[in-house]
Amino acid sequence: MTNPRTPLASLSDDDLAAFLTQQQAAYAALQGRGLKLDLTRGKPASAQLDLSNDLLHLPTSTTDRAGVDVRNYGGLEGLAELRELFAELLWVEPSQVVAGGNSSLTMMYSTIVDFLLFGGVDSPRPWSREEKVTFVCPVPGYDRHFSMLAEFGIEMVTVDMHDDGPDVAAVEALVKDDPSVKGIWIVPTYANPSGAIVSQEKAARLAAMPTAAPDFTIFWDNAYAFHHLTEDEAKSADILSLAAASGHPNRPIMFASTSKITFAGAGVAVLAASEANVRWWLGHLAMGSIGPDKVNHLRHVEFFRDADGVRAHMRKHREIIAPKFAAVDEALTDGLEGLEVAEWTHPTGGYFVNLDVLDGTASRVVSLAKGAGIALTPAGASFPHGHDPRDRNIRLAPTFPGLDEVRTAMAGVATCVALAAAEKLTQDRASGVGAGVGTTTGQSEPTTEGAPR
Amino acid sequence: MTNPRTPLASLSDDDLAAFLTQQQAAYAALQGRGLKLDLTRGKPASAQLDLSNDLLHLPTSTTDRAGVDVRNYGGLEGLAELRELFAELLWVEPSQVVAGGNSSLTMMYSTIVDFLLFGGVDSPRPWSREEKVTFVCPVPGYDRHFSMLAEFGIEMVTVDMHDDGPDVAAVEALVKDDPSVKGIWIVPTYANPSGAIVSQEKAARLAAMPTAAPDFTIFWDNAYAFHHLTEDEAKSADILSLAAASGHPNRPIMFASTSKITFAGAGVAVLAASEANVRWWLGHLAMGSIGPDKVNHLRHVEFFRDADGVRAHMRKHREIIAPKFAAVDEALTDGLEGLEVAEWTHPTGGYFVNLDVLDGTASRVVSLAKGAGIALTPAGASFPHGHDPRDRNIRLAPTFPGLDEVRTAMAGVATCVALAAAEKLTQDRASGVGAGVGTTTGQSEPTTEGAPR
Repeated sequence: MTNPRTPLASLSDDDLAAFLTQQQAAYAALQGRGLKLDLTRGKPASAQLDLSNDLLHLPTSTTDRAGVDVRNYGGLEGLAELRELFAELLWVEPSQVVAGGNSSLTMMYSTIVDFLLFGGVDSPRPWSREEKVTFVCPVPGYDRHFSMLAEFGIEMVTVDMHDDGPDVAAVEALVKDDPSVKGIWIVPTYANPSGAIVSQEKAARLAAMPTAAPDFTIFWDNAYAFHHLTEDEAKSADILSLAAASGHPNRPIMFASTSKITFAGAGVAVLAASEANVRWWLGHLAMGSIGPDKVNHLRHVEFFRDADGVRAHMRKHREIIAPKFAAVDEALTDGLEGLEVAEWTHPTGGYFVNLDVLDGTASRVVSLAKGAGIALTPAGASFPHGHDPRDRNIRLAPTFPGLDEVRTAMAGVATCVALAAAEKLTQDRASGVGAGVGTTTGQSEPTTEGAPR
Repeated sequence: MTNPRTPLASLSDDDLAAFLTQQQAAYAALQGRGLKLDLTRGKPASAQLDLSNDLLHLPTSTTDRAGVDVRNYGGLEGLAELRELFAELLWVEPSQVVAGGNSSLTMMYSTIVDFLLFGGVDSPRPWSREEKVTFVCPVPGYDRHFSMLAEFGIEMVTVDMHDDGPDVAAVEALVKDDPSVKGIWIVPTYANPSGAIVSQEKAARLAAMPTAAPDFTIFWDNAYAFHHLTEDEAKSADILSLAAASGHPNRPIMFASTSKITFAGAGVAVLAASEANVRWWLGHLAMGSIGPDKVNHLRHVEFFRDADGVRAHMRKHREIIAPKFAAVDEALTDGLEGLEVAEWTHPTGGYFVNLDVLDGTASRVVSLAKGAGIALTPAGASFPHGHDPRDRNIRLAPTFPGLDEVRTAMAGVATCVALAAAEKLTQDRASGVGAGVGTTTGQSEPTTEGAPR
């Protein structure tokens, strides 16, 4: 296959036809390989899970440092040692931390349930008694955040996610006058899926901005706070302090977990918030909990010993997964550089690569990949209700497969992207849409928000 | 101290005064001992927790029998092996079982949340959109059931709990015409706190009775299903089959856990219900869960091997706690037999003894015990909103303290019961209330519902 290394849209009709034929042949060859590869979900690989296998023989003790039996009931807020460890990692106070079960998603879910049924510390009434509840959703974003809101009948308005966080001016405009706007999702450090890092400045503006709703809440999902892919380890903005300093101490609620640190399904999750929020949260938790699994808490404390133990452990993860992210970039560069039909992120942390293809071709790319035995996350998954208005966004999750599988799969994805782009441009010219470079790129060129950082 | 072994109410005024003086002296002596004992909550003792310490080194494998890595995400319904084990124990089908986190209380809570926010399989609308939701609460019952309902603003109407289950005729009358009556709590086997066992006949009537609410739900909290105190191991009524046979397959939802089998805070909980209910429940769970802690599931499967392993394990618990229940009975018999100021249950399983004292004296008994360093569950705890209309009910939880502590504490409790009764009878006579045996016992004699079985 020749790689013209000229923008596809600038090819003559004949050259485009030749390119299309080449890509169709390449795709047929890809199908012939009988692949069965999966890049759909951000799951740790077995080799990553193996890093924590010592957990299987822990804890060696059955009491916490205060002498309390961790095997029995109680201790709603979680083991003090574990809360201190996370407090250091998240730059908050131990009194602001609750350690829970195996899923921060569950903590987010029950937080929204509490808002719906009871209202929060600053709520005039339970959200379920409001005529409408709206969340601001930076896109692309985390599909499970959006499906949760959809389940609760909460409306979603989108703003663009940039390299340094959401379009804050757009957020400010949305929250200023509309008291139905109750919350925003933020994955601040190594955002899902773009890898963006929310800057101190943007965090400060989110913390300080006037909101019509007194109980406007920032759901600060710090799922990848420690999940660095380079030596340049980003530090999350200190949202709790920023909010407190701005007179909105109860605005942010932070979530984190060890799901991608120890065992994805058997880790521990934490919530961090103002002490008033913590009291509120524990008050409702007390009605439906006999305390968290403190044995698992102690298991993790013995395993890590301290915050530095977590940091050292994360470097071992990096050794395993950074090459997979490099392989994604290499394959996309090899197959697509110069064609101007795709841009992708070069995350310095987190679990995803955000791939923006030619407008209107993401669904086709995913479908082509499926036809060649490569499972990709459904197009649009990173948007509310699964609807990407430009049909261009694809989330790539390279951690779970082996390195060779990532290479193979991503070379195939590049073929699918190029083929779908050639098909689209050919169709557009045939139907007289965007016959030239100018109009085509006007519609299709990825914006800078998905550009490499 | 002399024990008159004559009903206290039948004593002459002089003899009653002498008895009161004796009890006051006994109580003063009790206070002088500087005790610090706790009979408040149904917690396993350390020796019971030690029975499961092999869990601390398990699992030895990291995959389930299908070869799936238990350390990773997924498997929302829980490990198949564990669901099968519980299915056998609970006489249901594995497809009817969901294995969850460390707390059946949490599963009950989220079930009610689902009913409130979304409605159940047979609900015309979410419960939160109903003008009123009412639950039938057999009393005495489990305080956490009641506090959960109070938190949700659900109204509670009580019916009497008898030796063979709730007063079903009263239940039938409540549910027949009032569509606001949406549920009932039942602890079917070794009820909390009476130890009652719901008979097959009563279970069948609960399953079959006409209800105005199409989504009337039996919350069948089988917390003590395997927690036998004698060789006569009660079998719970098969409520799922009974309900299905009566045309109400979705009426019961059963809950159980290993909290009082392995580690109280680090066990596994299960829910069992019709397949339609299971689908409904998992559908909502999927929005807020990344799957249960399957490592802990496998840990328990390896520990027990099979259902017989659970049954054998429960006999070891029995060896530890049955003597404590015997000590409660001995102390109460020693101190109170013949006085006709108290009745108590002789449970054949579960975690509690139900003590009914002279009407109007339960709060005083608890207060006296506290003054002597013996912590008892607050009087009224076994009633909605903590209000026992006759102020006579006290829940005793003898599992956590050592055997000697149980003996000491219960001898003290007997003194407090006798003293409170003597005070009450003396006051009543002084104020001309119930001057004779007839009127006093008419008010104070415990009903048969709390009587020994």
